[in-house]
Amino acid sequence: MTGVDTARMVSNLQRLIRQPSVSATGEGIGECARLVSEILEENGIHSRLLTVPGHAPVVYGHLSGRGGGTILFYNHYDVQPAEPLDLWEHPPFGGVVEDGRVYGRGATDDKGEIVSRIEAVRALSEAGELLCDVKFVIEGEEENGSRGIHAYLERYGDIMSCDGIVWEFGYVDERARPIIGLGMKGLMFIEMTARGPGRDLHSGAAPLVQNPAWKLVGALSTLAGDDGRIMIPEWYAEAQPFSETDMEAIQRMPYDVGAVKEDLGIERFVREQDALQAKEDLAKVATCNIAGIWSGYSGDGTKTVLPARASAKLDMRLVPGMEPRMQWSRFRDHLSRNGYGDIETELLHGEPGIRTSPDHPFVRAVRDAADAAYGTHVLSVTYPETGPIWHFSTKLKAPCVLAGGTDVHARLHAPDEYARIDYMEKTAKMIMWLLSHPSG
Amino acid sequence: MTGVDTARMVSNLQRLIRQPSVSATGEGIGECARLVSEILEENGIHSRLLTVPGHAPVVYGHLSGRGGGTILFYNHYDVQPAEPLDLWEHPPFGGVVEDGRVYGRGATDDKGEIVSRIEAVRALSEAGELLCDVKFVIEGEEENGSRGIHAYLERYGDIMSCDGIVWEFGYVDERARPIIGLGMKGLMFIEMTARGPGRDLHSGAAPLVQNPAWKLVGALSTLAGDDGRIMIPEWYAEAQPFSETDMEAIQRMPYDVGAVKEDLGIERFVREQDALQAKEDLAKVATCNIAGIWSGYSGDGTKTVLPARASAKLDMRLVPGMEPRMQWSRFRDHLSRNGYGDIETELLHGEPGIRTSPDHPFVRAVRDAADAAYGTHVLSVTYPETGPIWHFSTKLKAPCVLAGGTDVHARLHAPDEYARIDYMEKTAKMIMWLLSHPSG
Repeated sequence: MTGVDTARMVSNLQRLIRQPSVSATGEGIGECARLVSEILEENGIHSRLLTVPGHAPVVYGHLSGRGGGTILFYNHYDVQPAEPLDLWEHPPFGGVVEDGRVYGRGATDDKGEIVSRIEAVRALSEAGELLCDVKFVIEGEEENGSRGIHAYLERYGDIMSCDGIVWEFGYVDERARPIIGLGMKGLMFIEMTARGPGRDLHSGAAPLVQNPAWKLVGALSTLAGDDGRIMIPEWYAEAQPFSETDMEAIQRMPYDVGAVKEDLGIERFVREQDALQAKEDLAKVATCNIAGIWSGYSGDGTKTVLPARASAKLDMRLVPGMEPRMQWSRFRDHLSRNGYGDIETELLHGEPGIRTSPDHPFVRAVRDAADAAYGTHVLSVTYPETGPIWHFSTKLKAPCVLAGGTDVHARLHAPDEYARIDYMEKTAKMIMWLLSHPSG
Repeated sequence: MTGVDTARMVSNLQRLIRQPSVSATGEGIGECARLVSEILEENGIHSRLLTVPGHAPVVYGHLSGRGGGTILFYNHYDVQPAEPLDLWEHPPFGGVVEDGRVYGRGATDDKGEIVSRIEAVRALSEAGELLCDVKFVIEGEEENGSRGIHAYLERYGDIMSCDGIVWEFGYVDERARPIIGLGMKGLMFIEMTARGPGRDLHSGAAPLVQNPAWKLVGALSTLAGDDGRIMIPEWYAEAQPFSETDMEAIQRMPYDVGAVKEDLGIERFVREQDALQAKEDLAKVATCNIAGIWSGYSGDGTKTVLPARASAKLDMRLVPGMEPRMQWSRFRDHLSRNGYGDIETELLHGEPGIRTSPDHPFVRAVRDAADAAYGTHVLSVTYPETGPIWHFSTKLKAPCVLAGGTDVHARLHAPDEYARIDYMEKTAKMIMWLLSHPSG
């Protein structure tokens, strides 16, 4: 097997990082799509931009192999906002290389994964060892809820047909073991707004005027406790239970509680979980996270203002079996029953979760590829993150597995996100193995 | 009696508005102090800057009359921050004159009141009709808690001795009646910060990591209900009850519930108060107002982040009798008892409230002056706002009354604050009457 060209791979990653592509604001989205397409072509992969009106373009790539089935790579070229900017030690769109890492927003999520896969296909193809047909579907709205992906799957599903999907990323744990993931959580992203007086008032009016921030605090405190445990009735009614093989995988999964706490910067887990309970909870707990809350004055010093409005952003992870529309209806009913029906709510995004069985042959092939490149692997039944995996797996009728080179410490969605260059190399090798061996 | 020069008064106000002086940030404070001093001198009033290290200068003014006692005017040249800037229709530091109003941050609070008083003294003095000695004490930290005023009173109390204090402002109601105020509420301004993980995390970690925003919401929901009613035990233990003459004044005070609601931009009062209850509550209710709350991501779109910290600013108005240090101790004990002892709290400002008796002769003189200029007046036992009135009244052993020309609709602390030019004229005439007649 021919080798991976690390310098080329890192250079391509730097090019992608230096092109901001923030889907929340739209900054640089079109430019980045064209750059990804250009890099695919440079590496011998046929590329075109797919479009659906009102949505960011999807970069499609295709290269035929020697008839060993079709593998589809799902990735995304968009990134999270870089804020808070003052907490970055490296420029967020700089692509600085330091101590074997490449720093920047999107370094690992998901631009580092994109270039590793492209490099693997290029290397195999140049050596004439590409067995499988390869398809790339690289979208531009993943960090903003993949809102267009359903429409893209409807319009372009035929050209995306495949036998197995490798999802956008996969973690590598603190002992350099790739974590092969069999599913992801779903998500509801909700914005709530409580309205008070017609304009910001002097707070001397407080004996007479309801402060919308109090109303919002009151509403939030009915949704979950201090530990984030959801108090909405029937929330878990349709949650899919673990199978025996799921539970076996959970039990076998290594988990270093001390290392995790250190990485997260916390002294204790919120419910004092031990290792097994922590692993189970990551897979089975549906969370209600306050991703943002804001009202009134947040500058220096004092300002005695009674604000006109108060807002919060909630992200609620769902476990497989929960259907976003049903949960949304429960959410709104709960607010109304508790006297908060007049708080404005908007479902910005809803996505079901899904799990592939550990017993599927495609899962076996990916595990073998991981062993070949990394010398070992770990199996995870559900990643705690969310992506449009349910849509792909359902529409394309293909199993989906998460496998990649994202260091678990890599600060996804946070300042000083980075990619480890050694993991990018190993991931490229893992993908080369997968594409050059028959699977399932 | 000679007349008021309206053009000069408005021009002086525009000069002051165009010099920003935001005590929360320090912007323009020194420059504005010098400008106020310059305007005093231009109008024949001896002026000097008083200083206490670490605090904004106080502008002191003095002019001798013909031996009719000494009246001290307390005012402030600093203003609230202008944010949110995008909601202003007139530039906040522009001093635009339109339809008989002067627009800008500080137009009425408190720069409009300053120039009305200066104009009154100039006019009387030029006509040789200034009976009382006049002193001006114009500070620069009122909107940020008047933190230095205690030290200024200690250092310069002797030169501030007086027989009566006219406080920085007074409202004029929607029927053009000046509201003569006999007291103000106290204030505790508190900042709370809950800390979570060492850095912002991907919200996939939510099953294991406490979100500090949930902790803050939990703590806040123990402090007050949705209607802002304080739930801290013993909060009202030392509140000073109304006297019979206080209650009579409250009952006699006109109050147009419909007009107030329209002005505030609300459909209903928070506790459905009728007119009498609304008037009583404005005087007797100690409030807990969320002046600001912020955590995580508040930009457009979605960001699935578990924030590292969450903060809130509370302003809690106190009624006369409540002592800020005692209430602060109750506040902290309450948080600890409810399991929130690890939330960081800081008392940014504490100020007692005070009420002067409606029976005091100085009150009578101010009421007569108001009748002479406005043709009528209204008596209010307690303004719902806060200033360092307790410190002045206690240190200088003099009664204090609020009287001025601030339209109740004038949007204090909010976008498009304005001063009515006709009320500035009437206020100047009221002050001329007060300074040219013997009082008490």
